[in-house]
Amino acid sequence: MDKGRVLLALTGFHPQRWHELLSTEREVVLEPDGPTDPSIAYAVVWKHRPNLLTSLPNLRVIFSIGAGVDHVFADPGLPDVPIVKIVADNLTQHMTEYVVWRVLDHHRQAMLYRSQQAKKIWHEAPQRPAGDISVGIMGMGTLGRAAASILKSLGFCVNGWSRREQAVEGVSTFAGEAGLIPFLNATDILVVLLPLTPATRGIVDYGLLRQLRRRNGLGGAVLINAGRGRLQKDADIVRALEDGTLKEASLDVFEVEPLPKTSPLWAHPKVFVTPHAAATSDPNHLVPIILRQMDAFERGEPLRDLVDREAGY
Amino acid sequence: MDKGRVLLALTGFHPQRWHELLSTEREVVLEPDGPTDPSIAYAVVWKHRPNLLTSLPNLRVIFSIGAGVDHVFADPGLPDVPIVKIVADNLTQHMTEYVVWRVLDHHRQAMLYRSQQAKKIWHEAPQRPAGDISVGIMGMGTLGRAAASILKSLGFCVNGWSRREQAVEGVSTFAGEAGLIPFLNATDILVVLLPLTPATRGIVDYGLLRQLRRRNGLGGAVLINAGRGRLQKDADIVRALEDGTLKEASLDVFEVEPLPKTSPLWAHPKVFVTPHAAATSDPNHLVPIILRQMDAFERGEPLRDLVDREAGY
Ligand SMILES: NC(=O)c1ccc[n+]([C@@H]2O[C@H](COP(=O)([O-])OP(=O)(O)OC[C@H]3O[C@@H](n4cnc5c(N)ncnc54)[C@H](OP(=O)(O)O)[C@@H]3O)[C@@H](O)[C@H]2O)c1
Ligand SMILES: NC(=O)c1ccc[n+]([C@@H]2O[C@H](COP(=O)([O-])OP(=O)(O)OC[C@H]3O[C@@H](n4cnc5c(N)ncnc54)[C@H](OP(=O)(O)O)[C@@H]3O)[C@@H](O)[C@H]2O)c1
Repeated sequence: MDKGRVLLALTGFHPQRWHELLSTEREVVLEPDGPTDPSIAYAVVWKHRPNLLTSLPNLRVIFSIGAGVDHVFADPGLPDVPIVKIVADNLTQHMTEYVVWRVLDHHRQAMLYRSQQAKKIWHEAPQRPAGDISVGIMGMGTLGRAAASILKSLGFCVNGWSRREQAVEGVSTFAGEAGLIPFLNATDILVVLLPLTPATRGIVDYGLLRQLRRRNGLGGAVLINAGRGRLQKDADIVRALEDGTLKEASLDVFEVEPLPKTSPLWAHPKVFVTPHAAATSDPNHLVPIILRQMDAFERGEPLRDLVDREAGY
Repeated sequence: MDKGRVLLALTGFHPQRWHELLSTEREVVLEPDGPTDPSIAYAVVWKHRPNLLTSLPNLRVIFSIGAGVDHVFADPGLPDVPIVKIVADNLTQHMTEYVVWRVLDHHRQAMLYRSQQAKKIWHEAPQRPAGDISVGIMGMGTLGRAAASILKSLGFCVNGWSRREQAVEGVSTFAGEAGLIPFLNATDILVVLLPLTPATRGIVDYGLLRQLRRRNGLGGAVLINAGRGRLQKDADIVRALEDGTLKEASLDVFEVEPLPKTSPLWAHPKVFVTPHAAATSDPNHLVPIILRQMDAFERGEPLRDLVDREAGY
């Protein structure tokens, strides 16, 4: 197979560095030469323009530059070619940092100590050991499993929920609809690392949050979402914080991004906001992975990290 | 050997729960029956009154209820009996949580994101991977080594400094005075987990902080002290924060505790203060360890976790 030409179609990412790095080995264009450009073999995309890829006759593979591929499926004219998502140690490590950081920040009562500091109050609050706390991870994929492993070594109890049954050493696993309520009922700190699919959209709503364990002395459950904003109902989170269902939340993603200035989440004293920054796709680490995949594909090897179209992730 | 009587002498800890738990197996008193009370076999102490133990003729062992024993040596009339310090998984785990939490909080730019949130600014800051950052741990004992292990699995480079040479897998180790400057020069985030001894008092001063690595794009080094307050010079930390030698600090301990209201550290925007709460001695976990040590000692077994009087820890 010849060295296929690459269409780079990114929205919300500066394409320059991606272009530079892909260009070291491939011919790269930012626009096809018309809707039926026969020269395009690969598309490297993030939120590409709908129907951009529909009629490219020689498109072989679509590469998403992120771990999530909901942005790819947002295209109603998506052609029927294999879609590859990013699986990269670097990205996984960043997400693990984010999850462990946020879990510890809530567990170690950062908000309490920060408000005490502001008032110059020297007061030690009772501190539960990690072994008393269950962290429940929704989405036990590449990212969920990596976070689970460090949380376990810190001594937390870890529950995991996934679509299909799976066994993970040292983790209590739950699967599918039947497993959801038991999973939530056994969880103090909920970490959302699901992909956004028709089955998961809006899943983190008030009803779900009500199912989390709320124990004496912990003052409500904790929500951490680093998956996708449209997994959650922003307004339901605010309601759950107001009525004590939730004690605190760390949110990296939101129904609408950038988070509108009018959102009550910005100024909520119990919410820690980051701007979809938990684990950013870094071209220096990811472009080599994409280029190696293209080379392997052209040598006739099977593609890795393929998206399951039916499941939507 | 008979079941020796216990003197419980705590300042700054409520003795009740310790008393209750020790009493399940031993006779416990809160005051000796005069300075030469022959019935006292063990002292379980935290900042006991000077000279309290000096003339007890049958005192066999002093147990410190904390990992640090500087409070024991503060007694000028300390008798010449073995001193045992606390080594407990529970305490170690709490300290590991604290260290990992504070390292991640600085590494993941919590102060920046919090100030952006206050202004409703949606802006993703460049984020270095953990592998670009060296965490240097001063004091590679029980606590330092446990923290190092999790920091390594998060991908950080880890340096360790101790009194005697030691090898720790995956950690660059430095020892003694000769190793101090090279250790500091290779460290971005300094974690202090030393005991307070004549050799370490005041070691974290302005000169030491100046030796930390300061690299472009990181904006100064970071200090985390969870050892003892008198290891540091509070005023030197303020100076180092003012002139950019330090970017930020997390302090659990202070020269004077409780931290006086007049200290500029309380309101410093670059400092996170906790009230000596990194790893608290929990009687539920520690009393059984002390009772087992007494039993073993009475069976003629050697004491574990003995303090080296000469070294002072
Ligand atoms: N905030 C950020 O910066 C950022 C960065 C990267 C990624 N992300 C998000 O993180 C997500 C997860 O990434 P990943 O690489 O870990 O994905 P992955 O390896 O594909 O894992 C997805 C996990 O979710 C589970 N799942 C999917 N649909 C489900 C359903 N309907 N019910 C129950 N479980 C379901 C899967 O179950 P099975 O194990 O049964 O397949 C799997 O365990 C991405 O899709 C992306 O949205 C966010
Ligand atoms: N903030 C809190 O809540 C809290 C809670 C518990 C403990 N602590 C503090 O943490 C300290 C450490 O506890 P640990 O159980 O890890 O103690 P440890 O096991 O005795 O370890 C002490 C470490 O410090 C090193 N060290 C001692 N003196 C030194 C010197 N002059 N120069 C260089 N290195 C020196 C030792 O070197 P070697 O390996 O060569 O012996 C050892 O690595 C305690 O002493 C206590 O002050 C604080």
